[in-house]
Amino acid sequence: MRKILLETGFSNSEIFCGTGAFEARAKGYACGQVCVITDTNVNALYGELINKTFPECFLTVIPAGEESKNPKTLLKILNDMLKRGMHRNCTVIAFGGGVVGDIAGLAASLYMRGVSLVQIPTTLLSQVDSSVGGKTAVDLNGVKNVIGTFYQPKEVIVDPLFLKTLPPREINCGLGEIVKYGALDGAIYKKLNENINNLRDYGFLEEITYDCILYKADIVKRDERDDKGLRKALNLGHTTGHAFELNYGGRSHGEFVLIGMYYELYIAVKRGICGGQYAEALKNLIYEVLGAMPCYPNISDAAKAAVHDKKNDDADIALILPVSEGEWTELKLGLKEYTRYLKECASEFRGLL
Amino acid sequence: MRKILLETGFSNSEIFCGTGAFEARAKGYACGQVCVITDTNVNALYGELINKTFPECFLTVIPAGEESKNPKTLLKILNDMLKRGMHRNCTVIAFGGGVVGDIAGLAASLYMRGVSLVQIPTTLLSQVDSSVGGKTAVDLNGVKNVIGTFYQPKEVIVDPLFLKTLPPREINCGLGEIVKYGALDGAIYKKLNENINNLRDYGFLEEITYDCILYKADIVKRDERDDKGLRKALNLGHTTGHAFELNYGGRSHGEFVLIGMYYELYIAVKRGICGGQYAEALKNLIYEVLGAMPCYPNISDAAKAAVHDKKNDDADIALILPVSEGEWTELKLGLKEYTRYLKECASEFRGLL
Repeated sequence: MRKILLETGFSNSEIFCGTGAFEARAKGYACGQVCVITDTNVNALYGELINKTFPECFLTVIPAGEESKNPKTLLKILNDMLKRGMHRNCTVIAFGGGVVGDIAGLAASLYMRGVSLVQIPTTLLSQVDSSVGGKTAVDLNGVKNVIGTFYQPKEVIVDPLFLKTLPPREINCGLGEIVKYGALDGAIYKKLNENINNLRDYGFLEEITYDCILYKADIVKRDERDDKGLRKALNLGHTTGHAFELNYGGRSHGEFVLIGMYYELYIAVKRGICGGQYAEALKNLIYEVLGAMPCYPNISDAAKAAVHDKKNDDADIALILPVSEGEWTELKLGLKEYTRYLKECASEFRGLL
Repeated sequence: MRKILLETGFSNSEIFCGTGAFEARAKGYACGQVCVITDTNVNALYGELINKTFPECFLTVIPAGEESKNPKTLLKILNDMLKRGMHRNCTVIAFGGGVVGDIAGLAASLYMRGVSLVQIPTTLLSQVDSSVGGKTAVDLNGVKNVIGTFYQPKEVIVDPLFLKTLPPREINCGLGEIVKYGALDGAIYKKLNENINNLRDYGFLEEITYDCILYKADIVKRDERDDKGLRKALNLGHTTGHAFELNYGGRSHGEFVLIGMYYELYIAVKRGICGGQYAEALKNLIYEVLGAMPCYPNISDAAKAAVHDKKNDDADIALILPVSEGEWTELKLGLKEYTRYLKECASEFRGLL
């Protein structure tokens, strides 16, 4: 077990990573007023562990799936906490994947203007990404993360124990974000390439998870509120990925990040931003995770969705593009040009099939 | 017009106080994407001024009254902002009293994880109290301020212009909190006593409002999140005041603060915490604002409500009590003892009628 300290100006997060982290850290919350929030899937697998570890907790189980990430579920959680007489000094434990972490984090940040929050991410995606950094949210009318806060968890417990029960698709989803980190950080890129035939090995995942969190924690430390131009690096692949996810659906978030990365790499190469060889190496990693690239119809409709991306300040479409190992840059494109590139990429890519 | 800079660790608030503040500062928000939130009462009086000052704003009018301070109204505001395509770099202007400020502040803190917020308080209460310090909230199931955030407004515009249209009861409500500041700060206490026959004069109100905000800003600066034991000073009178407000209703918040102060002064004197002469002087100020003290039945029921006060960490009832000019202390009491004191005070006080 290793510890990462994420110090922001206002509050600190302690992140405990590795085998044994749950065993070592969770018992610290056995006593005291604790509200554990989880979902139906996780509860089916780990309900007994939750009861054993937090015998006196107030357990709230939300339906599994992104559909739960809405204001109604959020209000139900807050209402239940109030009914159970939770105090200002209680602790909310988010025990689950990204949806649980986002909504439980938001609930913790809002209940009596903020109570202690502990994140125990149980998916690879939430371990390498959403559980660290303090972004909380629910969706509104189908638009992602419209309502949210920046709220650092007091502690994050990242234990590979939970990866063992994940379906392969969930591992792939997490690998999507891990490959994204590879496109940002040279050391992660190197490690991914060295282990390209080994990406799903639990020992390797434990190690690379730590590396990704360390990278993210460093960025969050310097740009907690995503307003200093650093944190947006983490959106690599996301502008196009989100747009496609919104339009086509049917795949995990991490997979859409990889699909987005693929299209954006095409733009990066066309614009002379990224060298062809490096782009090919990144595409190799993408293929290794995805197996094959999906073909989508009506690319222009999907492109439009990128404009509404809340990460953009105006109608320009902002793309975070890989430059070379450990280097990235931002490119802003108008919708017309962006659509043209996406279509070109899709047709070249279809030609390969 | 005078300026107070409220610097907290994370963000700064600029507070502009005095005649001419609105004229001088509001026009800075005439352009850009602006969402003005107000209520039906304020809109009836100042709708034209709003349209003239912010000609391109998106105006949201909520029903006047504490009943609007609920999650449903909050979600409606956030939904409307989304439908209108408000960006991450938009500004929310809270134009109204405490309810408008609390709910608009919460909406601004949540929309896309936080957009710029400007408070333009139009009641005396919100000018001296709620518009400064960054506390935002809505009520939940009749319990006050259960859902909220700490979120500093970028700017607060405090202009006595708006006091002219306030009914006398609203002036009294603000005076309630002003007298509370008098029980905390020696200079404000002195000024109140010197002007005891003059409390409702607009010139005096403009001056004392500045003093109160200066006092509050200094406390908030040192204890933004209300967790360092300083900000709780501002709860003087509030534990009992809230409990009575919840049980009896029918009066303004500020008046209940004064009623709470009266009962808590009784306890302070009985426990030897506060000298009799100083307590009498504070009671004089209370009487000057309230005219007469109301007699309430079933004091024990009201006392129970103090236990649920969210500002208390456990079943103990926490009271902020005046000690001497500019000095206060905290006293924790069990429910039984607290109830006994309240009953004693009520009976002595009834004997006086």
